[in-house]
Amino acid sequence: MTALSVPEDSLFGLDNLPYGVYSVDGSAPRVATRLDNHAIDLGLLLGTDGDNAVFEASTLNPFMAQGRARWVEVRAAIGEALRGDVPHEAIHSLTDVTMHLPVEVADYVDFYASEHHASNLGRLFRPDNPDPLMPNWKHLPVGYHGRSASIVVSGTDIVRPQGQRKGPQDPEPVFGPSVRLDIEAELGFIVGTGNAMGTQIAADEAEQHIFGAVLFNDWSARDIQAWEYVPLGPNLGKSFASTISAWVIPMLALQEAKVSVPDQDPQVLSYLQMKQPWGLDVDLEVAWNGQTVTRPPYAEMYWSPAQMLAHTTVNGAPTRTGDVYASGTISGPEKDQRGAFIELTWGGAEPITVNGEERTFLLDGDEITLTATAPGANGHRIGFGECTGRILPAR
Amino acid sequence: MTALSVPEDSLFGLDNLPYGVYSVDGSAPRVATRLDNHAIDLGLLLGTDGDNAVFEASTLNPFMAQGRARWVEVRAAIGEALRGDVPHEAIHSLTDVTMHLPVEVADYVDFYASEHHASNLGRLFRPDNPDPLMPNWKHLPVGYHGRSASIVVSGTDIVRPQGQRKGPQDPEPVFGPSVRLDIEAELGFIVGTGNAMGTQIAADEAEQHIFGAVLFNDWSARDIQAWEYVPLGPNLGKSFASTISAWVIPMLALQEAKVSVPDQDPQVLSYLQMKQPWGLDVDLEVAWNGQTVTRPPYAEMYWSPAQMLAHTTVNGAPTRTGDVYASGTISGPEKDQRGAFIELTWGGAEPITVNGEERTFLLDGDEITLTATAPGANGHRIGFGECTGRILPAR
Repeated sequence: MTALSVPEDSLFGLDNLPYGVYSVDGSAPRVATRLDNHAIDLGLLLGTDGDNAVFEASTLNPFMAQGRARWVEVRAAIGEALRGDVPHEAIHSLTDVTMHLPVEVADYVDFYASEHHASNLGRLFRPDNPDPLMPNWKHLPVGYHGRSASIVVSGTDIVRPQGQRKGPQDPEPVFGPSVRLDIEAELGFIVGTGNAMGTQIAADEAEQHIFGAVLFNDWSARDIQAWEYVPLGPNLGKSFASTISAWVIPMLALQEAKVSVPDQDPQVLSYLQMKQPWGLDVDLEVAWNGQTVTRPPYAEMYWSPAQMLAHTTVNGAPTRTGDVYASGTISGPEKDQRGAFIELTWGGAEPITVNGEERTFLLDGDEITLTATAPGANGHRIGFGECTGRILPAR
Repeated sequence: MTALSVPEDSLFGLDNLPYGVYSVDGSAPRVATRLDNHAIDLGLLLGTDGDNAVFEASTLNPFMAQGRARWVEVRAAIGEALRGDVPHEAIHSLTDVTMHLPVEVADYVDFYASEHHASNLGRLFRPDNPDPLMPNWKHLPVGYHGRSASIVVSGTDIVRPQGQRKGPQDPEPVFGPSVRLDIEAELGFIVGTGNAMGTQIAADEAEQHIFGAVLFNDWSARDIQAWEYVPLGPNLGKSFASTISAWVIPMLALQEAKVSVPDQDPQVLSYLQMKQPWGLDVDLEVAWNGQTVTRPPYAEMYWSPAQMLAHTTVNGAPTRTGDVYASGTISGPEKDQRGAFIELTWGGAEPITVNGEERTFLLDGDEITLTATAPGANGHRIGFGECTGRILPAR
């Protein structure tokens, strides 16, 4: 047994306690939490009797499906156990473990919740429109369904997608590897318990259903997207890959990070109203080959995560354990807060300097890493870990 | 043991042999085929040893995952077994069984593959555009991801969705039950074996991956859809429910139904070219409260099912056992071949007469039933069964 000590400034102290799925040397994946730079096996820490059998699963889904009362109970039990002596065999250095996709993804929806991002994209994609925002944008959180099968865990290489594109000068569409491969820095929210078909989740009840949050990189092939997206929305420009961070930060750890969303004017319809619409004060950083190029602030997001879930279900659509919904690109009002390179480089017209080179979109071999921190308990900050991926050549 | 006889004109003779999942009196769901008006338990017909253990599963996914060689082998074994004496306990009258959703749906994509439908919708939704088809439409099969969780089996009641809508005369959006609830008569295709992320399925190889076809009703709330769909496509106007028929018709049963697709002009890019692009000569009927109101011909569809699957994966997106992709509304060139009521009634401006009443969109209590037949072997026709649903009031 070992007493674990955690540096005071660790982003993974006792006020964080995220959930992930790990393996060592090819063993079966199991559920863990993270303390500082260690993965702690929850089955070995808390036992696997009864309800705790879920810690031997290869995804978080069985645990999430147990519901919020269990999330509260287990979080307290982990905190208590980690303050005492911990069995040696439960403790693994992060350098020794392989992290797996933590969630079996059911349905996946991507929103478009940043006013700054939507306005920038509107100006770039529809320059002739006088208002860059569509008329519906401030009335509902616009979103679309994406591909669940291509959500991968941080560290997975990303093969450059091929597809059709047609520039304004091209008489016909051409086929080939995307030449405008981009990122979208987002947060993803994991539904722990869903709603039955024909019922709704009220905005003020949404937090009962949201298990936690992850960093989310919605890799985007802008040339493929621009040609395909009318009238039914993005498809192959997005469906090749999205990357999430390996550690799911519980909503229970993010209570100190809650902030008001920006004023919503015009007033939203009643099903989107909340006693206190909350956003999250999460500060992201995007590193391009190791150099930080933008710092998107989640606190600027117009639509609340709870409003997004209420909207998803207001028509009676069911949600399930393992549903993922992402915020859409996080962009702040400043140029160095834009969460996609199409915005940061204004459609490629204004390159940025990365390690001394002028850059616009992603080249083969480029590596992108999202990180983030948020206020935790007792004046600490908590971390989200990394959401990283490297571009491989098209094949 | 019983020798089963099948009427010569049965739509479920030995040349059909679809797959479904049934239960009797609350028993655990199991895999069956259908002969005439009987469900035949495959585990009891063929045994459950070895590879046949998949017949005791509650979905077709384990069987589908075994791959095409097994689909060929099992189909031959079923045909042989049904020509001999069949164990009594394997045979159930369809009136005694409950049919279940046959597939655990992985990802779901809805296409837009009918030129007549896309043209009609373009005229209705974007009357100011000179060309009703978008510039991309003849270059790629336009599609979008939909909600897997709300795909239900034939016979499931459909609760009228609520949501936002904003008519041209409304100064602000209003909330309430959809007043333009519609159907889309489609075929759905079930992916039996998928492709790994970063790889593609060639159009000429697609049939190796497609297990079978079902009738598909993509219920659509046109008022919700019209307000929400720019710029990221349909979401809540569709996500409340889609209904599929209970029996999956194997592609192996549809070989006689293959026909050429209409001429594709301009020529498609090479990844969409096929030695012989095939469509399917499936004749659908839509009954509204028992009265046939339209007869959509699948043979008119512009894009082939194989091209849709090749397009889905050309960017390296993975597909999985249980993926469903639907064709989009099937509409022929004639008015009484239009597969959605928004087309059939021209946006509600030209009501049709149903059982003596003028009707445009769906009212509470309405029941819609899709049926279809196609050429089978030996001059027979094979049936798809029913895809039916009744509208319940909003709640």
